[in-house]
Amino acid sequence: MIYFDSAATSWPKPVEVLQAVEYCLKFVGANPGRAGHRMAVEAGRIVDEARELLAVLFNIRNPDRIVFTLNATEALNLAIKGLLKAGDHVITSSMEHNSVTRPLHVLQGKGVEVTKVPCDGEGFIRVKDIEAAIKPNTAAVIITHASNVTGTMMPVTEIGQLCKRKGLYFIVDAAQTAGVFELDVRFMGIHLLAFPGHKGLYGPPGTGGLYIAEGLELQPLKEGGTGSNSELPGQPDVLPERYESGTLNSAGIAGLAAGLKFIRREGMERIRRHELELTRRFLEGVEGIKGITVYGPKDLHNRAPVVSFSMKGKKAALVGAVLDQKYNIACRAGLHCAPDAHRTLGTLEQKLVRFSFSYFNNEREVDYSLNALRELDATAPEKLAAGYGKSCGC
Amino acid sequence: MIYFDSAATSWPKPVEVLQAVEYCLKFVGANPGRAGHRMAVEAGRIVDEARELLAVLFNIRNPDRIVFTLNATEALNLAIKGLLKAGDHVITSSMEHNSVTRPLHVLQGKGVEVTKVPCDGEGFIRVKDIEAAIKPNTAAVIITHASNVTGTMMPVTEIGQLCKRKGLYFIVDAAQTAGVFELDVRFMGIHLLAFPGHKGLYGPPGTGGLYIAEGLELQPLKEGGTGSNSELPGQPDVLPERYESGTLNSAGIAGLAAGLKFIRREGMERIRRHELELTRRFLEGVEGIKGITVYGPKDLHNRAPVVSFSMKGKKAALVGAVLDQKYNIACRAGLHCAPDAHRTLGTLEQKLVRFSFSYFNNEREVDYSLNALRELDATAPEKLAAGYGKSCGC
Repeated sequence: MIYFDSAATSWPKPVEVLQAVEYCLKFVGANPGRAGHRMAVEAGRIVDEARELLAVLFNIRNPDRIVFTLNATEALNLAIKGLLKAGDHVITSSMEHNSVTRPLHVLQGKGVEVTKVPCDGEGFIRVKDIEAAIKPNTAAVIITHASNVTGTMMPVTEIGQLCKRKGLYFIVDAAQTAGVFELDVRFMGIHLLAFPGHKGLYGPPGTGGLYIAEGLELQPLKEGGTGSNSELPGQPDVLPERYESGTLNSAGIAGLAAGLKFIRREGMERIRRHELELTRRFLEGVEGIKGITVYGPKDLHNRAPVVSFSMKGKKAALVGAVLDQKYNIACRAGLHCAPDAHRTLGTLEQKLVRFSFSYFNNEREVDYSLNALRELDATAPEKLAAGYGKSCGC
Repeated sequence: MIYFDSAATSWPKPVEVLQAVEYCLKFVGANPGRAGHRMAVEAGRIVDEARELLAVLFNIRNPDRIVFTLNATEALNLAIKGLLKAGDHVITSSMEHNSVTRPLHVLQGKGVEVTKVPCDGEGFIRVKDIEAAIKPNTAAVIITHASNVTGTMMPVTEIGQLCKRKGLYFIVDAAQTAGVFELDVRFMGIHLLAFPGHKGLYGPPGTGGLYIAEGLELQPLKEGGTGSNSELPGQPDVLPERYESGTLNSAGIAGLAAGLKFIRREGMERIRRHELELTRRFLEGVEGIKGITVYGPKDLHNRAPVVSFSMKGKKAALVGAVLDQKYNIACRAGLHCAPDAHRTLGTLEQKLVRFSFSYFNNEREVDYSLNALRELDATAPEKLAAGYGKSCGC
């Protein structure tokens, strides 16, 4: 199988990630931070190590300012709901994932004002449009580092500078970039950085986290056992416990630590170069297929290795089903949980097919997929629908 | 090592649990419910299977009413915060874990009224005391199935009948009982059942869930990508997606499904009998050690395999450290994230040592631990402190 769905979750995982998970489950199965016995202490050490590796990756001074969550969505919910209160105004883009727009939608019902700055047809946001949207009650800017639909990279450093100048909090959704692109919370002026563990960081599913800038206090999303200051009626103030109630996914975090070490060993730049090289090859190849329209930036400038496209006269779900069943290519067809992005691109009705490339893909796979798309392009829609329409409900 | 800390997380896990996690990470690494390709469909199938196994275990008619969470704490937060609103009154016991008391503490600040019904010296609650606490605005009763400190089982069936008679919602925390004791949501009249995946169900850490009774609508704790109805500005109404935003811990859930099959194969009654037999043996043996005081029920009647005790003149943390370092016994010393329970028992200052037994423990381990406790009892506190005090801060 050719796996082009790494924007959903990366696969395969480096072998050391699997080994780390197995080792943790087999030999360090205790609950970290919950007891003084050696196995619990060792479980705590593994979790701390992951925190330290993340701190180095994101240039975070104090690893305890990173809290682990189930996924990036939970991290974004904690960031957004933990920070904003009634009367606040928040600025975001028209390219966001539902993990940003839906919590904001809920907050709108509670008196938070939201401005969605329109992006251009390639998904780019202009910093001056953000600046123009600032009001006296603006509290924060929330933006994705790269669109999960078009791969469009947002000018995070410039937005960070704007936020610093205007005294706004800056929240970044790094779902598509953590582990692949530079993320320096200090240089970029990021106050809250949400990241998944299971995409570009190569950890198992069930891992993610949030960096919370020094001095910033959020309302916790959950309260419960923290393993420290148990006698307090409410959550302790100390991080990371304040935001990490209940048993952590320690085995998953062990795998995440192994994924982080894999990135360090291979080199993030090398990983990125490989993924972007595949993206370039695909973009160039697809240019010659006349029925295909690619959305988002046409070149590699400011682009993550995610490409969405449509095929003239063929529904995205049908194309996805044929790629899967006939060509054994795993990709994703639909709205990618980002209807705002599709509204921006004008593809809400039609939907798109998304290919996302990883370090474990190769040129042969890209070429094979281009051939598949050429064949598909040359096939009448009715013929495809007759063969595969049932399976995708088209 | 002798592992007597299964009330925190069970260890070891059945070998098939490790195999299921590995298989999922290696061969079914895709994101369930997020794409139509075969690997994503297979990942979805594994998650569905876990849901179905849980539905059978808890006698739940519709598996989709079970939503997966990071842990039981998240499930309890969703239940408590999702259900209760300002003006509501809720009744709970004086033996609850912080995963219940701390969310309630937050809600108290938002206009929810909380009554903690005092339990007796063994941790028992009387149903008539709950009944006496009911007010016109009482919305729900929240109670643990078994105390994580004393193992005291609460009369859940009778409380369920009371709730039914009085038209109250009934929330049960099954952290210490799921997989070991019968839990029948229909017979017991439970509306919201929170359970961990990584304790008595033998799943990996990072797994847990909440059963939500048919017709009951909760405010979600998190919003985000749900893989279905992506075009809606808010969460879809359909379960389980409504409460499962973001990528699930699919590998962990695969392990949980294997754990559930292990329980089915071994037989829950056989597992329970074994664990309670070890509890009985320990309780009988410890009776002859004069410096030891056991808290909670003295016999096996209505008791989970969790035993907490103190040693005269010796701090719990010191006893825990010696057991770990000298005798290689992993247990837990402290407040066990349940200060209310310790207030009820009068042990908030002194704290307690907790042994929790699992299906993988044996009689030899219990006898060895009894010998260790006899030696400890015969040793002067100063001598222990001199040898191990530093490591535990005593």
